[in-house]
Amino acid sequence: MKNVKVKCLLLIKNGTLVDAFGTIRADILIENGHIIDVKKGISEKADEGIDASGKIIVPGFVNMHNHLPMSLLRNNAEGKTLGKWLNEDIFPAERRMDEEDMYLGSYIGMAESLSAGITTTNSVYLEKSHLGGKAADELNARAFLSCDEPKEDGEEELKSALKFNERIRGYRMARPVMASHSVYSCKKENLILKKEYAKQNSLRYHIHMSETRKEIFHSIRNFRMRPVEYAESIGLLDKNTILAHAGWVTKREIGIIAKKKSVVVNNPVSNLKLATGGIMPLEQYREAGARITLGTDGPASNNSINMLETMKFSSLMQKHRYWNASLGNPKEILGYATYEGAKALGLKAGKLEKGYLADLAIIDPKINMVPLGDIYTSLVFSCNNSNIDTVIVDGKISFENGKVRNFDGKKARMFLERADALISGSS
Amino acid sequence: MKNVKVKCLLLIKNGTLVDAFGTIRADILIENGHIIDVKKGISEKADEGIDASGKIIVPGFVNMHNHLPMSLLRNNAEGKTLGKWLNEDIFPAERRMDEEDMYLGSYIGMAESLSAGITTTNSVYLEKSHLGGKAADELNARAFLSCDEPKEDGEEELKSALKFNERIRGYRMARPVMASHSVYSCKKENLILKKEYAKQNSLRYHIHMSETRKEIFHSIRNFRMRPVEYAESIGLLDKNTILAHAGWVTKREIGIIAKKKSVVVNNPVSNLKLATGGIMPLEQYREAGARITLGTDGPASNNSINMLETMKFSSLMQKHRYWNASLGNPKEILGYATYEGAKALGLKAGKLEKGYLADLAIIDPKINMVPLGDIYTSLVFSCNNSNIDTVIVDGKISFENGKVRNFDGKKARMFLERADALISGSS
Repeated sequence: MKNVKVKCLLLIKNGTLVDAFGTIRADILIENGHIIDVKKGISEKADEGIDASGKIIVPGFVNMHNHLPMSLLRNNAEGKTLGKWLNEDIFPAERRMDEEDMYLGSYIGMAESLSAGITTTNSVYLEKSHLGGKAADELNARAFLSCDEPKEDGEEELKSALKFNERIRGYRMARPVMASHSVYSCKKENLILKKEYAKQNSLRYHIHMSETRKEIFHSIRNFRMRPVEYAESIGLLDKNTILAHAGWVTKREIGIIAKKKSVVVNNPVSNLKLATGGIMPLEQYREAGARITLGTDGPASNNSINMLETMKFSSLMQKHRYWNASLGNPKEILGYATYEGAKALGLKAGKLEKGYLADLAIIDPKINMVPLGDIYTSLVFSCNNSNIDTVIVDGKISFENGKVRNFDGKKARMFLERADALISGSS
Repeated sequence: MKNVKVKCLLLIKNGTLVDAFGTIRADILIENGHIIDVKKGISEKADEGIDASGKIIVPGFVNMHNHLPMSLLRNNAEGKTLGKWLNEDIFPAERRMDEEDMYLGSYIGMAESLSAGITTTNSVYLEKSHLGGKAADELNARAFLSCDEPKEDGEEELKSALKFNERIRGYRMARPVMASHSVYSCKKENLILKKEYAKQNSLRYHIHMSETRKEIFHSIRNFRMRPVEYAESIGLLDKNTILAHAGWVTKREIGIIAKKKSVVVNNPVSNLKLATGGIMPLEQYREAGARITLGTDGPASNNSINMLETMKFSSLMQKHRYWNASLGNPKEILGYATYEGAKALGLKAGKLEKGYLADLAIIDPKINMVPLGDIYTSLVFSCNNSNIDTVIVDGKISFENGKVRNFDGKKARMFLERADALISGSS
């Protein structure tokens, strides 16, 4: 076993390490997927070395809300609001998708994620999307996968999710999450059944919440409560619950979420694109002490999988919303995009420190990020995908020299063929 | 002369050509800085050839509002509103800048622009920034440069601008523009003097307009009119006038701008970053038939020089502002970022057609822009800087293989030293 251990020592020299807790110049030593040392002048003999002189190292981004297979459906059916877009285009195309399609969509979506410095993705989709776990293993990217496909019968819906999760457990890089679609689309007993199962089995529970104003009207009409109040009333909220969007909320609802220690995911690009009209009151969540994370939402309503862009939008929309240029602090924003996301998923990652998972991105500032000045500002406002130099997941290089290391071009061609067929309805 | 002409034939084969007027698969033949043919299967023997199979060719982006030397000042003094930021940080640092500093800032800013597919920049700055023309020549990038440095005495201010413009005329890739800073910071007679000169000498005239709400109060208090009304009343508005921002406007002011055929520049990222509170009513400008273009504003209030990002923000902010996902049409947005900008500056560019300037960007869709679907949607919402493959200006390659062709690394090092000194105030 000792020989095996020595074989996976990776040493990154002379980088500028930046995480939500501070900045230092140091070397990073990695073994068996973990950071085992962080200090200047590490002299250990490593099997693989990276010279990060002049470069910045950040924890890998954690994309907390995505629908990976929807990469198949992007750049079509544009310019529609959420409801029309779902009913007229997305749902019919999804009904035509089989397991292989969803695998190809996940594969391309995860490869794009790696090229953008994203090391962990939380993706929720239909029952047939379980091969996303296979894509995660092949590409060496971390994936938290869940099935939120609603069914009439609660037991049946739970059974379908459990079967999905069982399959996910078969993959090295994937972890299962329990998920309901939303309080407006799922029956009360189904919601409770799934959340109760998640509680008893220590699973994260993911649900869409208060994305549009229409959902608020629906909730008040049907439950005589706002969506977050309703979710609390039936026991959906605790520290393992992840609420995607939660943009249309009252101060009282923000207070509930903070008290329950549930996690919110801000998806600014998707919200703007679908014209939901709301800007998530991230600053009020922060003041209330709520747990904030960031996501891209699915690639069909964005239309990219890009956490650098998401950080910039997240900060700028807060400055705009409150007419206050000091809000959307870039150091905190970086924390939401890395450490807070990892913590929400129960991963010891998002921090460049001994004992943490070796999930990180090496960034080349080139000429577009300089002068670095306040390095958090440079990362959030000046950095773009062309600055992503190397991406390491679980201690192994997944992206370098502008290429995803294990990428299979044949799959890209199959993906394009299938995307064409799905959109044209010929399959 | 015939031999010389043959020497600069450049042929781009098999690309998908996309401009604001349509999409075709064709080859492009370039000679002496111009597109001389666009059709399938051009068999001419060229001196240089590019295979653009699987790639997209767009007109180069025209960045209609920038302050190039401010790349020196970016990522410092963050989180402030426009007034505080200018008075506490930017103006003092600018007073410390000399000609060489401004040259280095322009050089780095223009190199960044090329790497982002920007072939033409309209940049306004201080008298000492005339060496931006030298940087344009060295990097082979098109620059429209102006000096809007206000002076007490109008004749003196005009003289300073004329001296600046005379110097700009000495450069192959630079063209002079006349500029006043703004109606709130310049004396009436100075504004009139410069605009009159511009009229008599067929120069474009650039001015900041209605960027913040404060300017509106200032204008009403001092002129008993809104800024655009005041500008019209003293003869500043005609088809050669470029209004940067023009975000805080009434319907009446939009009508005036449209009637006068003046050009507006939308700078969404800078507006959000400085928390000006306003979202430019681009859709109302469009309905009024106004001439719309896009810009990044200076790199210190953005903090990048990125027209791809600017297109995405421009579209998304309109969807958001009007709660209408069908607004911010990507084909029109591409037109604002290319053809409309070129036209506003009097350049026959922004269209991939015989007779137009050979200013263009070749884009590699990789995996993050596919499926291309509606190709305009893909360009505006999925494309990022890592997709920029090759950039051609005036028929010559300025950017390829991730690098600015003529870039001098020594200048980047000098730039960093000077930026440090300027911010710390040690110079």
